Amino acid sequence: MKQVDLNSDIGESFGAYKLGMDEEVLKHVSSANIACGWHAGDPMVMAETVKAAVTLGVGMGAHPGFPDLMGFGRRNLQVSPAEAKAYVTYQIGALAAFAAAQGTRLQHVKAHGALYNMAAKDPQLADAIAAAVEAVDQELILVGLAHSELTKAGEKRGLKVAHEVFADRAYNTDGTLVARTHPDAMIHDASLAAERVVQMVTTGTVKAVDGSTIDLTAHTICVHGDSPQALQFVATIREALQQASITITPLAKLLVSST
Amino acid sequence: MKQVDLNSDIGESFGAYKLGMDEEVLKHVSSANIACGWHAGDPMVMAETVKAAVTLGVGMGAHPGFPDLMGFGRRNLQVSPAEAKAYVTYQIGALAAFAAAQGTRLQHVKAHGALYNMAAKDPQLADAIAAAVEAVDQELILVGLAHSELTKAGEKRGLKVAHEVFADRAYNTDGTLVARTHPDAMIHDASLAAERVVQMVTTGTVKAVDGSTIDLTAHTICVHGDSPQALQFVATIREALQQASITITPLAKLLVSST
Amino acid sequence: MKQVDLNSDIGESFGAYKLGMDEEVLKHVSSANIACGWHAGDPMVMAETVKAAVTLGVGMGAHPGFPDLMGFGRRNLQVSPAEAKAYVTYQIGALAAFAAAQGTRLQHVKAHGALYNMAAKDPQLADAIAAAVEAVDQELILVGLAHSELTKAGEKRGLKVAHEVFADRAYNTDGTLVARTHPDAMIHDASLAAERVVQMVTTGTVKAVDGSTIDLTAHTICVHGDSPQALQFVATIREALQQASITITPLAKLLVSST
Amino acid sequence: MKQVDLNSDIGESFGAYKLGMDEEVLKHVSSANIACGWHAGDPMVMAETVKAAVTLGVGMGAHPGFPDLMGFGRRNLQVSPAEAKAYVTYQIGALAAFAAAQGTRLQHVKAHGALYNMAAKDPQLADAIAAAVEAVDQELILVGLAHSELTKAGEKRGLKVAHEVFADRAYNTDGTLVARTHPDAMIHDASLAAERVVQMVTTGTVKAVDGSTIDLTAHTICVHGDSPQALQFVATIREALQQASITITPLAKLLVSST
Repeated sequence: MKQVDLNSDIGESFGAYKLGMDEEVLKHVSSANIACGWHAGDPMVMAETVKAAVTLGVGMGAHPGFPDLMGFGRRNLQVSPAEAKAYVTYQIGALAAFAAAQGTRLQHVKAHGALYNMAAKDPQLADAIAAAVEAVDQELILVGLAHSELTKAGEKRGLKVAHEVFADRAYNTDGTLVARTHPDAMIHDASLAAERVVQMVTTGTVKAVDGSTIDLTAHTICVHGDSPQALQFVATIREALQQASITITPLAKLLVSST
Repeated sequence: MKQVDLNSDIGESFGAYKLGMDEEVLKHVSSANIACGWHAGDPMVMAETVKAAVTLGVGMGAHPGFPDLMGFGRRNLQVSPAEAKAYVTYQIGALAAFAAAQGTRLQHVKAHGALYNMAAKDPQLADAIAAAVEAVDQELILVGLAHSELTKAGEKRGLKVAHEVFADRAYNTDGTLVARTHPDAMIHDASLAAERVVQMVTTGTVKAVDGSTIDLTAHTICVHGDSPQALQFVATIREALQQASITITPLAKLLVSST
Repeated sequence: MKQVDLNSDIGESFGAYKLGMDEEVLKHVSSANIACGWHAGDPMVMAETVKAAVTLGVGMGAHPGFPDLMGFGRRNLQVSPAEAKAYVTYQIGALAAFAAAQGTRLQHVKAHGALYNMAAKDPQLADAIAAAVEAVDQELILVGLAHSELTKAGEKRGLKVAHEVFADRAYNTDGTLVARTHPDAMIHDASLAAERVVQMVTTGTVKAVDGSTIDLTAHTICVHGDSPQALQFVATIREALQQASITITPLAKLLVSST
Repeated sequence: MKQVDLNSDIGESFGAYKLGMDEEVLKHVSSANIACGWHAGDPMVMAETVKAAVTLGVGMGAHPGFPDLMGFGRRNLQVSPAEAKAYVTYQIGALAAFAAAQGTRLQHVKAHGALYNMAAKDPQLADAIAAAVEAVDQELILVGLAHSELTKAGEKRGLKVAHEVFADRAYNTDGTLVARTHPDAMIHDASLAAERVVQMVTTGTVKAVDGSTIDLTAHTICVHGDSPQALQFVATIREALQQASITITPLAKLLVSST
């Protein structure tokens, strides 16, 4: 039986500022990456978001980011590995307390934005994130860009690692994402995205931007919930997965059964 | 056998800013209140501080404060009980992750500055803090001003509660602290402070500012480590406690044996 | 010829977070209070907002608030007068630089949220704000709740002062606003609000919550632009003002002609 | 008559955190770069610092940095040119208000830390900073690393530009600073530093790290005041300058007379 996880970023509101359609997207995904108050989110938002995720049985993950609310954690910041480890430790712990308050635990950790992208390429930064996860709770699943330095770092430390793919992004032949500046970087057509995702899960491959077929492990698919169009996109992918008899499963269950 | 805990605030540095003499004061106290990044402290400081406290066997507590680094958490902020609960939950969790990374756990929670003072008088705010402690980890000891709304709130929820006294402060007849604006608010003489502390621990009483003797439970004594004079003050108190055959014991052990 | 200013808070977005319908509301008002990056707004938002206000010929004011983005500046913070003066000075200057970059100047200063409300009642805090305005630029108009400690403080210092009234709020007999917890605090009916506003401007009086008629100076009317309903409310008020032959004029012109 | 400016960073305290020996260093320098609340400083500190600088007749400059208090503005942050321009505009304005409150004006703008270093090499970032200075106040002097992209950007826009040299740093043959990771990066010997500085001012040259002599314009010399040793270093340089009959002059006077 084929299965895959669908994940989305939620809990990104802050104070008087509302962002995203969390209630809606939570109905579509099996795992949720919850902002931890640094690039987005605040403790009140975290409390509500964790409660909502628990109610719907969605796997919860810490979504640590850079201390850059003004830039939404999307701007590269040259932190040292020690700083990255400490920042990720802090944010995992902060969110874990809200999970504990609901009588449950976190499932995974997925770095946000620039931290995620930098760690995909920088082995030292990647290892710092993996080290934080290992130090805080060895049961936590580390999510990273498939076949990146981040997943490698987690595997080296013997962590449970989930390879993440993107439904709406094109891939280079080496498995990296095509830069957003490239005209063909984004997959805008939901049907095409759905078709690609089904191929990834069933065959472990995807068609790269140059037309060749490459290997790609897909434990979890990143989707978005920040607009009605985004939700429609997710719905199309879900439907395609179901028609291909692929079960949508939270990472915690999926990685247990795949091991 | 009489015993008491000595606690001090540490881990209050931030980035390039150094504050306090943490290494020194850690040698004198049995419990340490560690800043959690809101009114003071940052993740790098927290990591180092927790490591130092673990090395010296000092009981570690979260020291949550208001989101007011500029005011060092000393200015009243009118938060709702729900906000206070969420803020305390967040900060406990953040620090707990650094304890977990050292293979250990937190011992207690003591609110900082204005949050501590407001919660001593405001039953709703006090209950919000107690509720956060209860929700995150029922084994955590809640530290509050002796006989205040905060200790009452913890006791109502069935938490382990530590009544805190101040070596350098005068008391009103109702057990509240004499306001700092009062000329006799502070006890500057170390010998007198030491004598008072010994009386608190051995007899459960203290001489109030009007000369009368009042009851005062003293599980833990708050001392400071932000200057050489402060450290000398602590040393004098320690000596007096030892001469009175009072053992200095971390809260976790003290409350177990006193129950 | 009767005239009045219409003011609204704008520029309250922050980073990835969008708030308010600034483009729309700017078409309706003669003065705009622009957030200065503390309770809301960021430098990119300020640059855009100032540009938009200049384009539409709207009088621009600094809208300084407490350093509390998480609480949107709506929570009381116990700052000292010296802190308040410094915070207001800082924020006026920050916004003034964006005005200078557009070749123009600020028209007024209106404190935001809790700072506004606290200053309406606290003479020391009020004087601190007035002192900041006086120190930075004596030509700036200080906007405060009509007949409050804030307008008094400005008048004592010889500043240009604008008395502000609220279209959607009920008044006590002493000219203070009815607390929001009171069932009759808000005027929800746009026609009634419009009628009241016309009375304020033409007669300098308003019907208080107990039915009596009280004096009320109205240089500027505060309106909101954070929803389509709010904009409709403003449109109704504008129409009523026009039908009563009351000209909507920016404060700078209005106070010159009224002196 | 030969003259040069001596500048130092001051006003870097924040809330309860004290940093630097501002009172002492202000007696030694002719210009001061004052932190603007982003990487360091807060409005209370800015008010005090400006007052102290005015009292001693020291030329005041805005010292804008990245929004990274935790990293003291020393970590590279990938901001866009538009963001850099807005951030610098904001910070110049904030400090200018404190100067206005003292009845005076700012003399110069010098970017701090990572922003300074990045702008020395990145023409787009450099132009963004120059554009901010030009937009806010064309009389402000732009300080940048001598012969860097930043000074070039200012010169292209027709701004008054001051070339800055470092007393304690070695130079590459292309006029750039030797990276701190290089063993010979720092000049630790005060006498040698003083000798080099005198050469820079009198001959417009310096001995590069490879022993060759290169051209180097020196309008202003950066010195530090964060320790007693640093102050002694400055004193030695001052003495050497005096013995060489070089007058220490604030930038505003120096650039007028040199033009």
